[in-house]
Amino acid sequence: MSGAAKKTSTAGGFLQGKVDMTHGSGGRAMAQLIDNLFIERFDNEFLRQGNDQACLAVPAGRLVMSTDGHVIDPLFFPGGDIGSLAVHGTINDVVMSGATPLYLSAGFILEQGLALADLEKIVSSMADAARQCGTPIVTGDTKVVEKGSGDGVFITTTGIGVLPEDIHISGDRARPGDAILLSGSIGDHGIAIMSSRENLEFETSIVSDSAALHTLVAEMVAAVPAPAIHCLRDPTRGGLATTLNELARQSDVSMSLWESEIPVKASVRAACELLGLDPLYVANEGKLVCICHPDHAQTLLQVMQNHALGIDAAIIGQVNDDAHGFVQMQTAFGGSRIVDWLAGEQLPRIC
Amino acid sequence: MSGAAKKTSTAGGFLQGKVDMTHGSGGRAMAQLIDNLFIERFDNEFLRQGNDQACLAVPAGRLVMSTDGHVIDPLFFPGGDIGSLAVHGTINDVVMSGATPLYLSAGFILEQGLALADLEKIVSSMADAARQCGTPIVTGDTKVVEKGSGDGVFITTTGIGVLPEDIHISGDRARPGDAILLSGSIGDHGIAIMSSRENLEFETSIVSDSAALHTLVAEMVAAVPAPAIHCLRDPTRGGLATTLNELARQSDVSMSLWESEIPVKASVRAACELLGLDPLYVANEGKLVCICHPDHAQTLLQVMQNHALGIDAAIIGQVNDDAHGFVQMQTAFGGSRIVDWLAGEQLPRIC
Repeated sequence: MSGAAKKTSTAGGFLQGKVDMTHGSGGRAMAQLIDNLFIERFDNEFLRQGNDQACLAVPAGRLVMSTDGHVIDPLFFPGGDIGSLAVHGTINDVVMSGATPLYLSAGFILEQGLALADLEKIVSSMADAARQCGTPIVTGDTKVVEKGSGDGVFITTTGIGVLPEDIHISGDRARPGDAILLSGSIGDHGIAIMSSRENLEFETSIVSDSAALHTLVAEMVAAVPAPAIHCLRDPTRGGLATTLNELARQSDVSMSLWESEIPVKASVRAACELLGLDPLYVANEGKLVCICHPDHAQTLLQVMQNHALGIDAAIIGQVNDDAHGFVQMQTAFGGSRIVDWLAGEQLPRIC
Repeated sequence: MSGAAKKTSTAGGFLQGKVDMTHGSGGRAMAQLIDNLFIERFDNEFLRQGNDQACLAVPAGRLVMSTDGHVIDPLFFPGGDIGSLAVHGTINDVVMSGATPLYLSAGFILEQGLALADLEKIVSSMADAARQCGTPIVTGDTKVVEKGSGDGVFITTTGIGVLPEDIHISGDRARPGDAILLSGSIGDHGIAIMSSRENLEFETSIVSDSAALHTLVAEMVAAVPAPAIHCLRDPTRGGLATTLNELARQSDVSMSLWESEIPVKASVRAACELLGLDPLYVANEGKLVCICHPDHAQTLLQVMQNHALGIDAAIIGQVNDDAHGFVQMQTAFGGSRIVDWLAGEQLPRIC
């Protein structure tokens, strides 16, 4: 839809008023919202065509597709908001295959009563994140639900990317003897959210690590032969422990970790102790786990440490030949513990 | 995630219990739900890999991408449910470009307390619809929100399809003299939903027309030269009137319609009168508008009428050379009225 009606009133560049049911009815109000906010901020040739679908040029190669719903509470938090998170999160899921991300779609479910100024901030944040990553938001959708049937805004992003023929990175490719690398400190995102919810303040402010990992992955993939990287995964909900258990199960292997090698910021560790949380299970939104052939571990470690998003990267363990699928950890005090699946609920609506 | 833990308890093949917050935490309960319900029902090689993204083979050609959020209330209605609707709706958005649909993704936002048996029915319905359409659901996501922050289940589907090089169907391609074709009766879906909500019963039961239009579009595209079909669009939210106003605006043209040619089921007309609704603005979920070069109108009409989903197809108007963008209608009584944009709210949460 293009230029369907008069602009929604603005003051100082911000939309005024609140989302109401007419914004979801398919009529004039919805057309205005789409034109004046979404199309204007996301600003690309695909959206400006005004069709219900986007026609895209895709280079030769296999395609990768991933989708993520975002229901984070609160909508705005230290280090980001639901908009930037939605862009980063889906880009990361695409690049964990080794693919280059190309395009995103975004579906919004708005709750009646949401301040349009808040929606504008979120959309601007998404637009900035998408532009920085070179992945335009090419198609979208908006639905509105009554107050009490939603919570502010939910965003579902879907990403597609292109994967070269010789890259085969998958959760079932971990092999005994492989090195396990982690790109940086764990727990930052989950603790930033919890601190925001609980209005906690710490001596050092804890900020979400929400970031797009596409350039980091691209450098890693370029630095080693194609078969060297076996697995890549971003440890989001359920944290590092959940991701490693998933990979161990998919690959029918076990893992040994060295607790002293796993980077945890002092402020995050302190907050976890205060809140009764284990950093191993706390969500991250700008970190990756890499499982690789041991011959290439040092090369990959250096590539990661030379990248802004991998400064604190470390080799945190290795893959063992034991089909029980256990993830064991040698603790800082020399003992040993099993790092099991997350049994209950950790932190709701963390992403 | 594959085979992560014991199966969730079943009785008579249905999952028991309700969605709780652990189903969204990334831990064991979520893994079980994904394995025992989503992967089992959607049942394809991509999902069974267990990665966060799907690696797909795509034939040469341009790609089409479309996304749709579904917040329909009630979840189950005559003629379908939110699951089948989510599959049909996104397939339709993809095929309105003339593309062949290939793959779908599905993101679920579940409200705490939703009966797992209901979720199972919805997922089974999606799986059946996807299978019938030949478009597997290759990747997905599940989030859980607290009771009162959602409403049962919301589903966002994204579809990708492939478009041959010589097809250029777009909302801005309507030209003066073009014929406007409609594939069948309008208002069925919206009235089926309203009847369901208001517990209304009519002499003839009114059923949603929710259906995937990919084979109808494929036959239409195959029957005429590539440049003949200018526009295709499915008249969903806001109805036929909204879709025609969108197309008129995108193409900078006006349109004339003949009311007597627009098919409306007698039961739907009666229900509209009872409910104070105009069928022109009521949502459809299994119909399409086609704007084509007049030389090919009869051919396309016959192709549509020969298809199960186009039996009541009709030529309902023509495109005029007037950049004001008006859609005018010659009424059944010989008068004339403007068919304007939908001004307010018609029917909330209709799709």
